[in-house]
Amino acid sequence: MIHGHGDDIFRYSDIRANFSSNVYNHFDHRALYAHLAKHMECLAHYPAPAPEQMERRLAETLGIDASEVMVTAGGTEAIYLTAQAHRRSRSVIVQPTFSEYADACRVHEHRVAYVYPHQMSAGEDGRDAWVPAGCEVVWMCNPNNPTGQVWPRADLLRLVREHPATLFVLDASYAPFTEQPLISPCEGVELPNLLMLHSITKEYGLPGLRLGYVTAQAALLETLRRMRMPWTVNPLALEAGLWLVDHRVGYRLPLRELMEERERVSRELCRLGIVEVWPSDSHMLLCRLRMGRADNLKEFLATHHGLLIRDASNFEGLDAGYFRIAVQTAEEDDQMIKAITEWIES
Amino acid sequence: MIHGHGDDIFRYSDIRANFSSNVYNHFDHRALYAHLAKHMECLAHYPAPAPEQMERRLAETLGIDASEVMVTAGGTEAIYLTAQAHRRSRSVIVQPTFSEYADACRVHEHRVAYVYPHQMSAGEDGRDAWVPAGCEVVWMCNPNNPTGQVWPRADLLRLVREHPATLFVLDASYAPFTEQPLISPCEGVELPNLLMLHSITKEYGLPGLRLGYVTAQAALLETLRRMRMPWTVNPLALEAGLWLVDHRVGYRLPLRELMEERERVSRELCRLGIVEVWPSDSHMLLCRLRMGRADNLKEFLATHHGLLIRDASNFEGLDAGYFRIAVQTAEEDDQMIKAITEWIES
Repeated sequence: MIHGHGDDIFRYSDIRANFSSNVYNHFDHRALYAHLAKHMECLAHYPAPAPEQMERRLAETLGIDASEVMVTAGGTEAIYLTAQAHRRSRSVIVQPTFSEYADACRVHEHRVAYVYPHQMSAGEDGRDAWVPAGCEVVWMCNPNNPTGQVWPRADLLRLVREHPATLFVLDASYAPFTEQPLISPCEGVELPNLLMLHSITKEYGLPGLRLGYVTAQAALLETLRRMRMPWTVNPLALEAGLWLVDHRVGYRLPLRELMEERERVSRELCRLGIVEVWPSDSHMLLCRLRMGRADNLKEFLATHHGLLIRDASNFEGLDAGYFRIAVQTAEEDDQMIKAITEWIES
Repeated sequence: MIHGHGDDIFRYSDIRANFSSNVYNHFDHRALYAHLAKHMECLAHYPAPAPEQMERRLAETLGIDASEVMVTAGGTEAIYLTAQAHRRSRSVIVQPTFSEYADACRVHEHRVAYVYPHQMSAGEDGRDAWVPAGCEVVWMCNPNNPTGQVWPRADLLRLVREHPATLFVLDASYAPFTEQPLISPCEGVELPNLLMLHSITKEYGLPGLRLGYVTAQAALLETLRRMRMPWTVNPLALEAGLWLVDHRVGYRLPLRELMEERERVSRELCRLGIVEVWPSDSHMLLCRLRMGRADNLKEFLATHHGLLIRDASNFEGLDAGYFRIAVQTAEEDDQMIKAITEWIES
C-alpha cells in the first residue's frame, strides 16, 4: 500500500503533535544528527553491498550469531522479501493488522486467508483449528498494530512448536512498547520455523532512517538473502544504526509512564461516551466512534488543532468509525482529548 | 549479486584513488552536505510513501509528464522491479554487462539468453536475428558497463521500433559520460516499449545516496508501481535529490577532458604491451592482461599503492585477465599506469 498509512504529516503544513504513527516522538536526536553530519562523505561511496558490520554489532548485542541477523531497509523490505521467498504460499494473516503483510502476499501471489481473534479458538482435538492443514505461512504482529494487544508468550511458543511445517512471521516492531513478556530474539532463533521482524525505526523513533532487521535461524535467513538486491540500505542509515546501538542508553523509553498514560487516556476517551476503546498492552489505542466518521475527526483535528491521528478505517475488517492514536506527553494527550470533545460538541 | 561489484573500498583501509566504480570522484559535495545537515529532522518522520515531489521536479527538468517518471532507491530497485513486473519472461541480455540484470532475472525466474556483440548481426531478411521470436524483454546498458561502448542511436531507435512486442530496458546510467548522441528521456517516452533507467548516483557522483529514476510511458511505469514497496527511498536521499536538481550547474562533468584523458590512458596502457584495451565511448576502459590475473593486479595496486581498480573477471563471458578502470585526474591516472608498470616488472 503506497497511500493510506499513518504519519502522513507531509500532507499538512502545521502539525503540533503527531499521534498518527506508533513512533515515540520525544527522543533527543541532536547527538545522532551531529554524528551523521560528520560522516556525510559516506554518500560519495557505494555502501557495503550487504550490511554485515551492522549485523555483527546487532548479533553481539542480542547474544546470537551474526548469521542469525539480517539488516534490511526498514521492516518493509523484510516483509516483502519474506513474502517473495515463500512465493505462492498458503498464508494466514491475523487481522486487523499492518496492511503490508497482505500487500506483500498479493504482490507475491500468496493464497491468503484472514483470521480474526474471535475466530482463533481450538478445535475439538484441542489444536488450533484456525491454522488450517497445509498452511505454509502465518503472519502476526506482536504487540499488534493497530490494537496494541500482546499474544500471551506461552500460547505463541506452543503455537509455533505445534506447527513445525508452518513458518511463523512474527513482527516484533513494537516489542519495546510493552511490559508484557515476549519471545526474545535469542529464544526465537531456537525455533526453526520462526522469523522475527524488528524495527530500528520504532525503537529509536527514527522512521526516516529506513532501518530494520530480521532474526531467525541461519538457514531460514538464507532463503531471504538469496532474493535480495544489493545496496538496499542507505550508508548514512547504517552509520546511524551503528551509532544508535552504541548509544542505546540515551534511547530508553519511559515505558512505565507510557503505559500509565495509555490507561489514563483510555479512561478519558471512554468517559466521552462516544468513543469505544480497545484494550491495549502497548502505547497505542485503537478507538471507534459510535457516531461519525474517523476521516472527519482526523481532518478537524489536523486543520483546527494541528493534531494528527491515524484514520484506521482502512485496516482489514474495521469500519469508517475507527481511528488509532499513539499516546504522547500528558499535555499533548490532553490537547487531543479536549479537541475531540470540541469536535463532538460541534 | 551481493559480492563482486566494484567500489569495494570498504574492504581496504587506505585507498588514495578509486578507479573501481564508474563514478566521477571530483565533485565538491560540501554545499550538499551542509544542506543535508540542516534537514536531519526528516529522519524522525516517515517519508512520503512514494517520492512524488521529486518525480514532479525531475519531470519539469526533463520536459516530460510526472506520470512518466518513477523515482527509485538507486538503479537497482528499478532493475529488480522491472524483472518482477515481467516475471518468467523470455529475456535477452546483451553481454558483457552489469550483472544485476541477470541476477534480477534469476530471482524472478526469467528464461534468459545471453547475446554478445559479435553475434548481433542481421538475419537473411535483414531483421535482427539475435532478438528471437517471442522474446519479451531485452536488457541493454548504454553506454555499456564495463566496455564504455555506445550503441549507435539510429540503430537503437530502429531496433525498438521494429520489435513492438518486446520491452527494451535501456540502462542509461552512464549517459552523462559520453559525447555520442543518445536517446533522451523525452524521446524515450514516445516509444511504448522502451523503459529507460537513470542514475542520480552516477550523474552526481553520490552512490551512497541510493537514488535513481525510471522514465517510460505512464502505462509501462504503472506495471512497476503496482509491485513496489512503500518508503524504499530514504527521505534524506530525496532531500538531496531535490537540492541536486536545483544545483546541477555545480555538477557539470568536465566531459571533454574526461574523453581526452580516456584516450590518453588507453594509449599509455596499450604501450605497456601486456594490456589489451577495448574501444570506449565513455570514461571507463575495459582492459585485459595478456599475462597474469586481474585479481593479483588489483591486490597489488590496493595494498602497495592505495589504488583501487575493478577486477572484471566476474562479468559474463570475461576471463581472469579482465579489469576495468574509470579514468580520474591525469595525476591519479599516471600513478595508476606507473603502478601497473611496477607490477609487470615485479
